[in-house]
Amino acid sequence: MTDATPNEIDQALKAAQLAFLSYKNLSGKKKAVFLRAVADEIEALGPELVQTAMRETNLPEARIINERGRTTGHCRMFADLVEEGSWVDTRVDTALPHRMPAPKPDLRKMLVPIGPVVVFGAANFPLAYSTAGGDTISALAAGCPVIVKAHPAHAGTSSLVATAVTQAAGRTGMPNAVFQHVFGASFEVGQALVKHPLTKAVGFTGSLAGGKALFDLANQRPEPIPVFAEMSSINPVVLLPQSLQTGFAKTALVLASSTTLGVGQFCTNPGLILAVEGEGLTSFVAALAAEINKSAPGTMLHQGIADNYATRSKRTLTQQGITVEAQANEAGDAAQGRPMIVSVAAKEFLKNPVLAEEVFGPFSMIVKCADRHELHTVVNLLHGQLTCSVIGSDQEIAEYESMINVLVEKAGRLIVNGVPTGVEVCPSMNHGGPFPATTDSRFTAVGTDAIKRFARPVAFQNFPNALLPDELKDGNPLGIWRLVNGEFDRK
Amino acid sequence: MTDATPNEIDQALKAAQLAFLSYKNLSGKKKAVFLRAVADEIEALGPELVQTAMRETNLPEARIINERGRTTGHCRMFADLVEEGSWVDTRVDTALPHRMPAPKPDLRKMLVPIGPVVVFGAANFPLAYSTAGGDTISALAAGCPVIVKAHPAHAGTSSLVATAVTQAAGRTGMPNAVFQHVFGASFEVGQALVKHPLTKAVGFTGSLAGGKALFDLANQRPEPIPVFAEMSSINPVVLLPQSLQTGFAKTALVLASSTTLGVGQFCTNPGLILAVEGEGLTSFVAALAAEINKSAPGTMLHQGIADNYATRSKRTLTQQGITVEAQANEAGDAAQGRPMIVSVAAKEFLKNPVLAEEVFGPFSMIVKCADRHELHTVVNLLHGQLTCSVIGSDQEIAEYESMINVLVEKAGRLIVNGVPTGVEVCPSMNHGGPFPATTDSRFTAVGTDAIKRFARPVAFQNFPNALLPDELKDGNPLGIWRLVNGEFDRK
Repeated sequence: MTDATPNEIDQALKAAQLAFLSYKNLSGKKKAVFLRAVADEIEALGPELVQTAMRETNLPEARIINERGRTTGHCRMFADLVEEGSWVDTRVDTALPHRMPAPKPDLRKMLVPIGPVVVFGAANFPLAYSTAGGDTISALAAGCPVIVKAHPAHAGTSSLVATAVTQAAGRTGMPNAVFQHVFGASFEVGQALVKHPLTKAVGFTGSLAGGKALFDLANQRPEPIPVFAEMSSINPVVLLPQSLQTGFAKTALVLASSTTLGVGQFCTNPGLILAVEGEGLTSFVAALAAEINKSAPGTMLHQGIADNYATRSKRTLTQQGITVEAQANEAGDAAQGRPMIVSVAAKEFLKNPVLAEEVFGPFSMIVKCADRHELHTVVNLLHGQLTCSVIGSDQEIAEYESMINVLVEKAGRLIVNGVPTGVEVCPSMNHGGPFPATTDSRFTAVGTDAIKRFARPVAFQNFPNALLPDELKDGNPLGIWRLVNGEFDRK
Repeated sequence: MTDATPNEIDQALKAAQLAFLSYKNLSGKKKAVFLRAVADEIEALGPELVQTAMRETNLPEARIINERGRTTGHCRMFADLVEEGSWVDTRVDTALPHRMPAPKPDLRKMLVPIGPVVVFGAANFPLAYSTAGGDTISALAAGCPVIVKAHPAHAGTSSLVATAVTQAAGRTGMPNAVFQHVFGASFEVGQALVKHPLTKAVGFTGSLAGGKALFDLANQRPEPIPVFAEMSSINPVVLLPQSLQTGFAKTALVLASSTTLGVGQFCTNPGLILAVEGEGLTSFVAALAAEINKSAPGTMLHQGIADNYATRSKRTLTQQGITVEAQANEAGDAAQGRPMIVSVAAKEFLKNPVLAEEVFGPFSMIVKCADRHELHTVVNLLHGQLTCSVIGSDQEIAEYESMINVLVEKAGRLIVNGVPTGVEVCPSMNHGGPFPATTDSRFTAVGTDAIKRFARPVAFQNFPNALLPDELKDGNPLGIWRLVNGEFDRK
């Protein structure tokens, strides 16, 4: 598992481009056969994959098995999507040869794949957001060849999955190099992949520093390309006063569990809790503290992440006005993350931008607001987030409509009476949000619409019917949903 | 018409943000009333608008009247679109409370407006791509307040249209500052508008240098924002050999007219003609030269554009291997653009990147390829374009399928047996293309889908029905097309 050389990277992109010119024209049905074969081959890896992933990531067996199900699930979901075929957003406007003062030409438009895509595996999802993760599978579904750079922390897992994808591509007759897998512990490998002129888009899940560096590189290319980086979110949870009074115990239980789930290593970890001071909040903090005190430290994904958690949480503790409300009784070892809850007055939080930075791990900060007005001020100044949550009764939530009106501007997903962890894979999911949550709030990384990241529209004017893609042909041979002369139908 | 000060720009963005928080929640019906009023008010400006635009741009009356029709047309088109309402791409997945191992929450997603948008008026479209142009109207339709920076070359026209939009906003009860108009001859004004933290997207039509500068500025902000810049395209037209032999005379007529239309000041001007050497090409060049020789120079939009045309065309003439095939017999004055056709051997074109740069004006370059293989090589190395065209019989086009397969990667619109000028405004239009044609090939600047540039998806999880936007409510009160639990319908 040595780093790819510049020459190997160049060869990989050239091979990907060659693959692209034929792969992009394969029917949705053929791509679906390939994607389903990927799912089958991953399952066929059996316990070896589970054991390898457990060893490399310190994640428990149940979690890995669950994540494997999520991975094969999205392979089959995207297979269904491209087999059905309507995702290409077809619009047809037929010619009006006698229109005055000038005839109207025949115009038909659909989404086409954008070209070779580079995917960086995520540390925290060795299966669902890595080698055959959501980025890879949605790009392949769109018709883009993919080059995955294995995450160095789980390169063995990545290699196994890469073998499965390659096997699936081979036995379903996909073009050579439709999927390629390279190693690169150094930043240079990633840099070369992103800068290569044949690369047309990038998928990344990781730190703000890493994602922003790739985004900047991509924008400084002679031909800038889109980077879909999911980077940083502290997923604020607003606790409304009345519901806090009556429901503090339940809320504390649910939030303690969400904060410590998977040793807090989720992009949707609730890292910020906002509430107005009062009896309700005091009771809630006590209940939450009791849960956190008795929680256990957990071994983190790798030593770098554990070190980073220690450094970040320590740095937070040195900031002005921070109170430690709870931490797990057991300290754990250097590889482990020790759950911790701190609190700070809103007026300190508003002054100190360090407090709004993500502490990746089982950590959450309670911001105590003097009153509703100050809560609104904090909400106004939040950075972009993947999610914002509000806990309250329907009536109370209605009373805070103007706050929710602002929260919508801060996040890609708004949750009522729930926690941000748990990201459903379905058409209505939006996993993305204003910067710095992601680099492009207009696209989701989870759910069927993730495919749209790797496509662009092309209009075909006056084309002979036989030369049009099937999606655009007269008579709608694929039976997909199309907007034809202003009317939606699948005829 | 003095330049806006930094303080005025700051006040404008703050006012736009305030407007945004209410405007974004207005129903599609209410926004439609506003947009139709904009069209009415523009028409009510009567001859004063036409005269002012003619004086400021040197464009003839018929063109201005046509462009006014295009402008009021897109106001009404976007009014219809948002009144109907399905453009928000609603997806609903209802809860499965008994799902194992975990319940599925209720999730609903739609597009919401992105926030205040800054629009830079275009020099070459004083009405259709300026103050109430496609960028402004699609952003307003999406629910975004707009700040227009008037183009200094037609600030009087811009002011008149701004009055009409402001009048329409006032009489239809829109929030204050939903539309604002500022002047700025200096780059600093544009820079301040793009860098302001409350600006969330930018629309621009103009030069590659100008668009790229704004794109870079926007990406270097602490919070990067999307820039939709339409910049540079030479719109290659490939003439296939057989059809050239039989149809050279007609093709020459059509291309001469497309090249000189509006003194060549269209982003879709056919600036590059590709063909294989032979008798057909020789006849075509002679016929095209005859047309161009007898064409007349035309006064350009402003002196800067005329100077730029003179400089750029002269620079081309100093490049190695360039032959002047034709130019208008009359030289014209310094304010005019003199139509010109040059030719160059493909092997010179391939060596010299200067030859692939846009010469904005009535100019086209014929690239003579030794054979089909060399034609394919030139096509492979084309930059991103708004359009690529192919002239040939159905049979011949089918024979060149592999070339067309590559052309699709180079452009946003492919045309068979037609010229690139003439951009229909309809759902199937795509006006955009790979860099440097535009900064974001995933979006169109013309047609209904232009609205998507100014929107992003937001998911609502577990929301009480009463607090959901109407687009997402149970029972589909707006009767829009929605994807509900995997099925498309408008029930």
